Amino acid sequence: MTIVVGFVPTKEGRAALARAVEEARTRQAPLVVINSNRGGRDFDDDTVRAAESELQRAQDELTGAGLSVEVRQLVRGNEPAEDLIAVANETDADLIVIGLRRRTPVGKLILGSNAQRILLDAPCAVLAVKA
Amino acid sequence: MTIVVGFVPTKEGRAALARAVEEARTRQAPLVVINSNRGGRDFDDDTVRAAESELQRAQDELTGAGLSVEVRQLVRGNEPAEDLIAVANETDADLIVIGLRRRTPVGKLILGSNAQRILLDAPCAVLAVKA
Repeated sequence: MTIVVGFVPTKEGRAALARAVEEARTRQAPLVVINSNRGGRDFDDDTVRAAESELQRAQDELTGAGLSVEVRQLVRGNEPAEDLIAVANETDADLIVIGLRRRTPVGKLILGSNAQRILLDAPCAVLAVKA
Repeated sequence: MTIVVGFVPTKEGRAALARAVEEARTRQAPLVVINSNRGGRDFDDDTVRAAESELQRAQDELTGAGLSVEVRQLVRGNEPAEDLIAVANETDADLIVIGLRRRTPVGKLILGSNAQRILLDAPCAVLAVKA
């Protein structure tokens, strides 16, 4: 019944985390949060600190509701898709939650390669959440 | 809180319907099933009859559990993505459920255009279920 969520300190990452917390409460399921931050090179210190405090809030909310939550900081240099799929397999997950950017009116019709890879290779259902 | 599911008489369509029924029960939410069969040209009579009886079972299961379920047969010649997104907007849906084919080991890394379009243009979260 485990839910796995990919978290990055962006609008999409925060939307995914919020929905994953909601799903964990609805299903009374354990949550594993994968912070797939590749060495921090994409984000500044403030962004990383804000993300850490959001993770802490999510953890407090779920443990306060008697639910299990585990946060794994993965900095192995993998693509986020690889980390998520590996953890979903390892935990025999029932659901992966990912964040998607909203398409702008002139946006081209293509999904990011990480999102596509997760959707195609996930061993379970994938919930794609709009930021 | 409405859930919208796209149903076609295929393995993917059946997986999506089964999961949508499960989600409707978990969330105690109304379900709208869109049978986006474009004039039946892709399917033979037996397949269509089998699909109809599966829809009937889903309807019986949900109404038996006191939940609202509506089946809309759409044969307007639209792409399935257009129908799903129109109905999700109209019903102010909280979730769209779609079925995805499993990628074969030699499968190319690309999602179908309907799935991509739904993921990009949906007004709400999209649950992608593996057949």
